[in-house]
Amino acid sequence: MNVKALEKTALSVRALAMDAIQKANSGHPGVVMGAAELGAILYGEILRHDPSEPKWQDRDRFVLSAGHGSMFLYSLLHLAGYKEMTLDAIKSFRQVGSAAAGHPEYGYSGGIEMTTGPLGQGLATAVGMAIAETMLAARFNKGDHKIVDHYTYVLAGDGCFQEGVSAEASSLAGHLELSKLIVFYDSNKITIDGSTDLSFTEDTAKRYESYGWQVLQGSMYDFENIAALVASAKAEKSKPSLIILKSIIGKGSPNKANTADSHGAALGMDEVILARKELGIPPGDGLDFYIAEEALEYFKAKRTEWKISRESWQSDFDAWAKAYPELKKEWDNFYSGKSNIPVLPEFKIGDKIATRAAGNKALVAIAALNPNLVGGSADLKGPNAVGIPNDYSVKQRQGAYIYYGVREFAMAAIANGITVHGGFRSFCSTFMVFADYLRPALRLSAIMKQPVIYVLTHDSIFVGEDGPTHQPVEHLASLRIIPNVLVLRPADAEETAEAWAMAMERTDGPTVLALSRQNTTVFAKEDASWKSAIRNGAYIVQKSKGKPEAVIIATGSEVNMAMEAASISGKDVQVVSMISRELFEKQSEAVQKQIIPDGVRCIVCEAGVRQGWEGWAKAKDILSIDRFGESGPGDKVAEHLGFTSAVLAKMI
Amino acid sequence: MNVKALEKTALSVRALAMDAIQKANSGHPGVVMGAAELGAILYGEILRHDPSEPKWQDRDRFVLSAGHGSMFLYSLLHLAGYKEMTLDAIKSFRQVGSAAAGHPEYGYSGGIEMTTGPLGQGLATAVGMAIAETMLAARFNKGDHKIVDHYTYVLAGDGCFQEGVSAEASSLAGHLELSKLIVFYDSNKITIDGSTDLSFTEDTAKRYESYGWQVLQGSMYDFENIAALVASAKAEKSKPSLIILKSIIGKGSPNKANTADSHGAALGMDEVILARKELGIPPGDGLDFYIAEEALEYFKAKRTEWKISRESWQSDFDAWAKAYPELKKEWDNFYSGKSNIPVLPEFKIGDKIATRAAGNKALVAIAALNPNLVGGSADLKGPNAVGIPNDYSVKQRQGAYIYYGVREFAMAAIANGITVHGGFRSFCSTFMVFADYLRPALRLSAIMKQPVIYVLTHDSIFVGEDGPTHQPVEHLASLRIIPNVLVLRPADAEETAEAWAMAMERTDGPTVLALSRQNTTVFAKEDASWKSAIRNGAYIVQKSKGKPEAVIIATGSEVNMAMEAASISGKDVQVVSMISRELFEKQSEAVQKQIIPDGVRCIVCEAGVRQGWEGWAKAKDILSIDRFGESGPGDKVAEHLGFTSAVLAKMI
Repeated sequence: MNVKALEKTALSVRALAMDAIQKANSGHPGVVMGAAELGAILYGEILRHDPSEPKWQDRDRFVLSAGHGSMFLYSLLHLAGYKEMTLDAIKSFRQVGSAAAGHPEYGYSGGIEMTTGPLGQGLATAVGMAIAETMLAARFNKGDHKIVDHYTYVLAGDGCFQEGVSAEASSLAGHLELSKLIVFYDSNKITIDGSTDLSFTEDTAKRYESYGWQVLQGSMYDFENIAALVASAKAEKSKPSLIILKSIIGKGSPNKANTADSHGAALGMDEVILARKELGIPPGDGLDFYIAEEALEYFKAKRTEWKISRESWQSDFDAWAKAYPELKKEWDNFYSGKSNIPVLPEFKIGDKIATRAAGNKALVAIAALNPNLVGGSADLKGPNAVGIPNDYSVKQRQGAYIYYGVREFAMAAIANGITVHGGFRSFCSTFMVFADYLRPALRLSAIMKQPVIYVLTHDSIFVGEDGPTHQPVEHLASLRIIPNVLVLRPADAEETAEAWAMAMERTDGPTVLALSRQNTTVFAKEDASWKSAIRNGAYIVQKSKGKPEAVIIATGSEVNMAMEAASISGKDVQVVSMISRELFEKQSEAVQKQIIPDGVRCIVCEAGVRQGWEGWAKAKDILSIDRFGESGPGDKVAEHLGFTSAVLAKMI
Repeated sequence: MNVKALEKTALSVRALAMDAIQKANSGHPGVVMGAAELGAILYGEILRHDPSEPKWQDRDRFVLSAGHGSMFLYSLLHLAGYKEMTLDAIKSFRQVGSAAAGHPEYGYSGGIEMTTGPLGQGLATAVGMAIAETMLAARFNKGDHKIVDHYTYVLAGDGCFQEGVSAEASSLAGHLELSKLIVFYDSNKITIDGSTDLSFTEDTAKRYESYGWQVLQGSMYDFENIAALVASAKAEKSKPSLIILKSIIGKGSPNKANTADSHGAALGMDEVILARKELGIPPGDGLDFYIAEEALEYFKAKRTEWKISRESWQSDFDAWAKAYPELKKEWDNFYSGKSNIPVLPEFKIGDKIATRAAGNKALVAIAALNPNLVGGSADLKGPNAVGIPNDYSVKQRQGAYIYYGVREFAMAAIANGITVHGGFRSFCSTFMVFADYLRPALRLSAIMKQPVIYVLTHDSIFVGEDGPTHQPVEHLASLRIIPNVLVLRPADAEETAEAWAMAMERTDGPTVLALSRQNTTVFAKEDASWKSAIRNGAYIVQKSKGKPEAVIIATGSEVNMAMEAASISGKDVQVVSMISRELFEKQSEAVQKQIIPDGVRCIVCEAGVRQGWEGWAKAKDILSIDRFGESGPGDKVAEHLGFTSAVLAKMI
């Protein structure tokens, strides 16, 4: 280990961070300066990666869960040689268009394994990456060919360890014995409010032991020690490891180190100058983005080493591919980014079946044809109807169904991790009302453009007896408004199967499948091309004879209700199933008018709040539920709320 | 201790639960039958309460965090004599209008201390109740008069302990040494998916020790043992206690006990009959809602004891009131349910000040006049600008400012607990984008009609450099659609002060204050009665000379922008500040037309998604942000997104 070079690397990380943050007059120097030594050894000696091939499938992953310390990552990616992370990018830190955004943004540069910033989620998502590694290894490693064999490293701070999502995920990681997950805890005991003594005095080491982790402790400022701790972590084969490194926030800043002042604001030019002096950085000409020559040399040599190491893996991979051509084909399928859509299950017209149950039939058929589809539920495997063959567990790493326990938020973060890791498609599932518990992770799926599938069942007050805490009313609307989330609410079993196919076809963002608890009746589709029409977001379920007196737009289980109301009313109305308002709103006016002719009165029917429908119908023409529900059998609750086909018929 | 009576009570709890759930053909018998013994001793011997005065301020609180076991609570409330929980209510368990709703609903019956069902939140909210107790005790107890001296008990199950929110809250509870919080863990090792071995094998006892709790263990089925454990919990003066009781889910059901089958569905009539036999319940005539005579007698006697106990407290309270008349006045103020609105801070027209900073001035003035206002932030005291004098801590129980740490969800649940406890008003605070982290607790504030104040700052893409993960775009819309949530987005410092007053005036639900990170300019109000007009949700900021060519509806920091655009456009437009669309939509048509005259084109400007505004303006007349933001200085991001006064002026 070239300690001198590592020291100079740490020095360069501090220098780049101070200058970039000072130039932007915005950013978080504290964690970067406090953990620079870890960064140096991590990128210099520990990580197995190759900046010339940032998507190398068997690279080690590193997640900066303390995402506000983005300059930690950027300075090291630059030194390591990731091509997007140029010095110019760093000089335009936190400016629109820079790869060096305020927080690490997935897709902005090689080496940014995920978007971080919302605390706790980096660690939780990394658990998903570690799970993916075990799943891949179990499927593809053969004999001496360990073509999948990488670690997932995380740097997390005091904030991450206070968030519940990291607790949920860590408990599951211990249960699953994810021994190749290694988390560094940058323990500086300072948060924005000041000392952690104000609110966070638990024994975190003991807590992680209680989860079944190996806990190691050391100093941030001793390279040999860090290397030894990582070696111990790697030697432990049945537990994830937490390495607690005592550190000093803002280390190197003579007046702001060890205080909250260094956490979230530029040090100020005067302090930058003092810090350079204290650190022994040659006095620069203002902000000169100093990098030590030794660090440059060191990483130059490293780049050759990394390339050789990756090429050695490639040789082994090629040998494996030759020995196991079928497996290689499977591998390519896993990494193709494409899904196979099977012949979807068929249903009989008139059958009464809950869309969640129909969803299970589609899911099982799809899973059979897509062995890289993995997922699970937050302790609602049966109610969500998301069971697929082969449980994943310590003893069955080749399994596909994950028991998440009652941990919705961690589940969604882990699904992000499995997906962003590469190789897999993932779904997760809970009651729709508990989408609130996992919402921050769904937002990250959308920001990162990850095609995670969220199966949210029990999608309205028709949940019934469980009452207002379990009946979603605002949730359809609240999910639709997250940018890049596709919400599909199929009306019957046949639509549900298509919805599953649509979700699998999507590649650039998450899909929500909103499914019913209660039965809906499979209806005859007049439109022979409904399966293509539905991909525009809406189609005509029941065509009017002449120019319709009104068009009823309904979604999900309310399409049955709309047809009933139409029949009661005796009017010549047209019934439309709008599986996705977002999709339909993206269609051309011509396409829209085919479904909803110009100048015809629209009536909307959905068992949820009206927000978002006002563009489609007048207030008095929207049958919605704009209050919390009640406990009672679903139909009784609907009656109580005036949400029935009779009421709808009257409106018509 | 009358063990025989307790046994008969437990028997009656089982009988009532089986029958009620069977009659409803819906419900969760497992936890009720598994924990019936705890219920018996809790309501018979442990709880200090008086059903004839369910709102007695110094009663012990009991929270059924495992809310699905609602029949546990209902059967005991019935036996104890809470008047709303009649046998008829129990016979109509899970029917619309019954006090015995699917999950315990706050306000439906005395003895239901909060709404539970969403797992983990009961425990987290109970932490707030325990905090409130210490705060009240420190403020009002004098000498020998311990007029505030009660315990908070919780029954939580495996699910509650898997949820992150309970982890966050428990860590804080340990830090705060809430020794009068006693949590029973009904440890039956079964969840909906089956055995906890599937996903939950951590050492929960050790975890709670790591939080600084006392952990005690015993059997659910030994009354003497439970009593002894509770005595130990009470004896511990500096730690909350977790009492782990090993139990058997569905105990008494010969074929379903100890299986997930007993968790969430009626046992079935055949099994009910077998269970009655096994338990020794006289064979009934179908569902006869059996209650043992001994249990009735026992609780009849208890009711007298409870009354005497409460009257003894009342005597002491009266003596205290006489001795400390000023304190008594304060006490009455605390419990009046009314807030005092001070002379609000004034600002100069033309001053540039962020609404978060203006909010702090209003908050400090209000806190000075309302000593029962307590609250804090999730580690963003400075950025959220919610500092008020006197920190709350173990050594300063009389404090008012709570350091929540980086625990948004627990914070909001705790704020619910402090409020629903009685005596206090509470606020909590984080960045608006992290409303996603606390959303499930906000929903409970709304369901329980608790006037918690949510101070959500950094309310748009004008957050700037922190980028998309920190820039709310869908959040205003997503908060507005939760029923019974009032969202106020003030436009300048003066409006912010009024918004704080409006929040304090509210008594029947939560208020969100959406405040800006960036400065807004204090503008002159043409309308002399704007302070009353704003309470309708909107008022005219800039009146047109004649009939306006257009009305621009703007909210928050966009009102400044709208005025600028109006001026650039040179048109005779009217500018409206709509601090609350919900409020404005509730006004009469006449009031609305005064602000937005009939037949005039409306233009809407808000830095967030358009959903919900379509009822007010045509799609092309809405200037919104319907995508994620970018990292960069706020004005540069706005420019990048085409969200500027120049663009708005062009639209005009």
